[in-house]
Amino acid sequence: MATVRLLDDAEISTLPEVKAVFDDIRATRGSDFVNNIWRGLANDPALLKRTWEQVKTVMVGEGALDPLTREMIYLAVSTANSCSYCAHSHTAAARAKGMTPAQHAEVLAIIGLAAQTNALVTAMQIPVDEAFLVDGK
Amino acid sequence: MATVRLLDDAEISTLPEVKAVFDDIRATRGSDFVNNIWRGLANDPALLKRTWEQVKTVMVGEGALDPLTREMIYLAVSTANSCSYCAHSHTAAARAKGMTPAQHAEVLAIIGLAAQTNALVTAMQIPVDEAFLVDGK
Amino acid sequence: MATVRLLDDAEISTLPEVKAVFDDIRATRGSDFVNNIWRGLANDPALLKRTWEQVKTVMVGEGALDPLTREMIYLAVSTANSCSYCAHSHTAAARAKGMTPAQHAEVLAIIGLAAQTNALVTAMQIPVDEAFLVDGK
Amino acid sequence: MATVRLLDDAEISTLPEVKAVFDDIRATRGSDFVNNIWRGLANDPALLKRTWEQVKTVMVGEGALDPLTREMIYLAVSTANSCSYCAHSHTAAARAKGMTPAQHAEVLAIIGLAAQTNALVTAMQIPVDEAFLVDGK
Amino acid sequence: MATVRLLDDAEISTLPEVKAVFDDIRATRGSDFVNNIWRGLANDPALLKRTWEQVKTVMVGEGALDPLTREMIYLAVSTANSCSYCAHSHTAAARAKGMTPAQHAEVLAIIGLAAQTNALVTAMQIPVDEAFLVDGK
Amino acid sequence: MATVRLLDDAEISTLPEVKAVFDDIRATRGSDFVNNIWRGLANDPALLKRTWEQVKTVMVGEGALDPLTREMIYLAVSTANSCSYCAHSHTAAARAKGMTPAQHAEVLAIIGLAAQTNALVTAMQIPVDEAFLVDGK
Repeated sequence: MATVRLLDDAEISTLPEVKAVFDDIRATRGSDFVNNIWRGLANDPALLKRTWEQVKTVMVGEGALDPLTREMIYLAVSTANSCSYCAHSHTAAARAKGMTPAQHAEVLAIIGLAAQTNALVTAMQIPVDEAFLVDGK
Repeated sequence: MATVRLLDDAEISTLPEVKAVFDDIRATRGSDFVNNIWRGLANDPALLKRTWEQVKTVMVGEGALDPLTREMIYLAVSTANSCSYCAHSHTAAARAKGMTPAQHAEVLAIIGLAAQTNALVTAMQIPVDEAFLVDGK
Repeated sequence: MATVRLLDDAEISTLPEVKAVFDDIRATRGSDFVNNIWRGLANDPALLKRTWEQVKTVMVGEGALDPLTREMIYLAVSTANSCSYCAHSHTAAARAKGMTPAQHAEVLAIIGLAAQTNALVTAMQIPVDEAFLVDGK
Repeated sequence: MATVRLLDDAEISTLPEVKAVFDDIRATRGSDFVNNIWRGLANDPALLKRTWEQVKTVMVGEGALDPLTREMIYLAVSTANSCSYCAHSHTAAARAKGMTPAQHAEVLAIIGLAAQTNALVTAMQIPVDEAFLVDGK
Repeated sequence: MATVRLLDDAEISTLPEVKAVFDDIRATRGSDFVNNIWRGLANDPALLKRTWEQVKTVMVGEGALDPLTREMIYLAVSTANSCSYCAHSHTAAARAKGMTPAQHAEVLAIIGLAAQTNALVTAMQIPVDEAFLVDGK
Repeated sequence: MATVRLLDDAEISTLPEVKAVFDDIRATRGSDFVNNIWRGLANDPALLKRTWEQVKTVMVGEGALDPLTREMIYLAVSTANSCSYCAHSHTAAARAKGMTPAQHAEVLAIIGLAAQTNALVTAMQIPVDEAFLVDGK
């Protein structure tokens, strides 16, 4: 159902640039499973590599936020962007990183509440309070 | 610039239902400052009350996620929903709850990266991997 | 295909808080059928209850707008928010409340036209006419 | 602040195709005031004419829905599409067509509630109930 | 799975207004295949006709942009608007107009990059540079 | 009005990582002017660098699409994503790369038309035609 071909492992084994990225995904995640977004991106090895390197930089390893918090933020953004595949993949990823049912419930509640207040603010065109402004210089 | 009137404190003092909500906002936040969204919602006391009660339930007090994490998720959703006022107000709220510049930088990086991969997935119409499916029963 | 489990009636019968909401949905609608959104929300009884109470308050009973008008507005918003399930459920709900094919055709025409002029305005970044401004005080 | 020039009446008087549309807008609305979207669209007389003819067909005159209902649906869609100018212009238009404060409050409540349930449905990826399906043939 | 019936050719042959549009679609495209959007729009002959006439005017024949460029822009917008059907149909249409795999890869890369910088700009609420302003008069 | 500080040239001259990116922006564009998005991103030198390198890779130099076509696609996506700053900056950029008024008018017409058909498709939940499917293997 995709608009591009999804490359399988047999084909990827013949494409050194793609294979190098897939090897790194597997090594980084400690799993042989590589999900479909990467198989679609594999049609453009340069875009595949740029995208994976960003994901690895932003989402993996040490950071000011722990990996689960980062994943829940990613899930929340993906939902607000109406991305069906991404809602599935990042819910699964957050669970794999330890998201409890209670935490998931809170993420859902925040996503829903924010959508509501965002819409109300847009409908009312509320002007920004001076107290919220950052000194631009 | 709003599409509704923003009620000031003098007017609110004459509206008992509205005043009760404003009093609770001030008491809950420990601050006399009440920002503009509530002054717009004050045109409909019932909607004001329902909205504040949700915010108080979801965002204030004990939870499975700490208040700052909840606020950063709210900020991320607000950005993805293109709400200018909300980006301002929830950035300010997250800072008030202790968000460091390094944490803010990570939130921004996740928002940007998620938007990119969300868009790529939508363009490619990637089918959901079976591994991500939840048993519906 | 959901990211959460959908609770069936057997399981709901063992959860008093959830069952109370489902009973009220059935009584309010005068129908035994309860659609899937409520079965997903049932994973979080508090969110289920808050959501249903809002729906009941806003969409059911007396109001300044008749129930069909409210439902058509809900359908229009759901479409603009790109919610596939919601387009299905609120088209069905509007039909159940008496939406005629001619009324449906007009709703579709407005949704399409608004999307077009919204996009043109955003592309041209049209400034707000002074005549549209509300006195904020 | 626009990305295109906004044509004033002096310039429009020198452009017969544009002037004909502006004359029709004024005659149809019974008002000399023509708001900024039309002054931006005037840069492309063909797009101006196509857009106005759609607005006139869909929003003016007899229909299965009364003009105010149509305008409130337009406002709701414009809000969901995050169009600031459109939120202003269609709130003003709905008021000019008789929208009462109580009706406005209900429109806002529906916009907010729909945004919330839309987001929750997207987060949970709720599958469409069979009962909602239309026989495609 | 649609919310409206999709009219087949047998039914369309009994509806002269609809048949005239379908005949023109087939003649203009030089193909007997008419895709599902038109079969859904056929429920409202006037909306069908207005929509097809716009598509024919904007997308077919001579223009300042060649047909493939127009189609790639249409595809990019459809993706950003999270329209699944449209991502499929306009990817197919762009391929039919000669889009090469390398061009498709660039369209995808731009869609993804724009989504990222758009989101970052919205999160940071970057003010418009004076250098970008157009003289409104 | 931003939610982050915008760094000026004096401050940037003290930050070697940031200065290196700004020097490359200036050299690549052949202009001393650096617009505000980069001054906001400068708060996070790593994000600044990743973002600029993507822009340089995707938008500058040789490609399967000429630079103006790429810029018009970027503008179209930015509009669909409701990014006000981006509509301004990419309209200006497209003009700087030679976009004529006639080309701009066509871009606007496509953005508007696509938004309309996208919304109609979403409202009708049109199923994907088999003819549009790509063989996934």
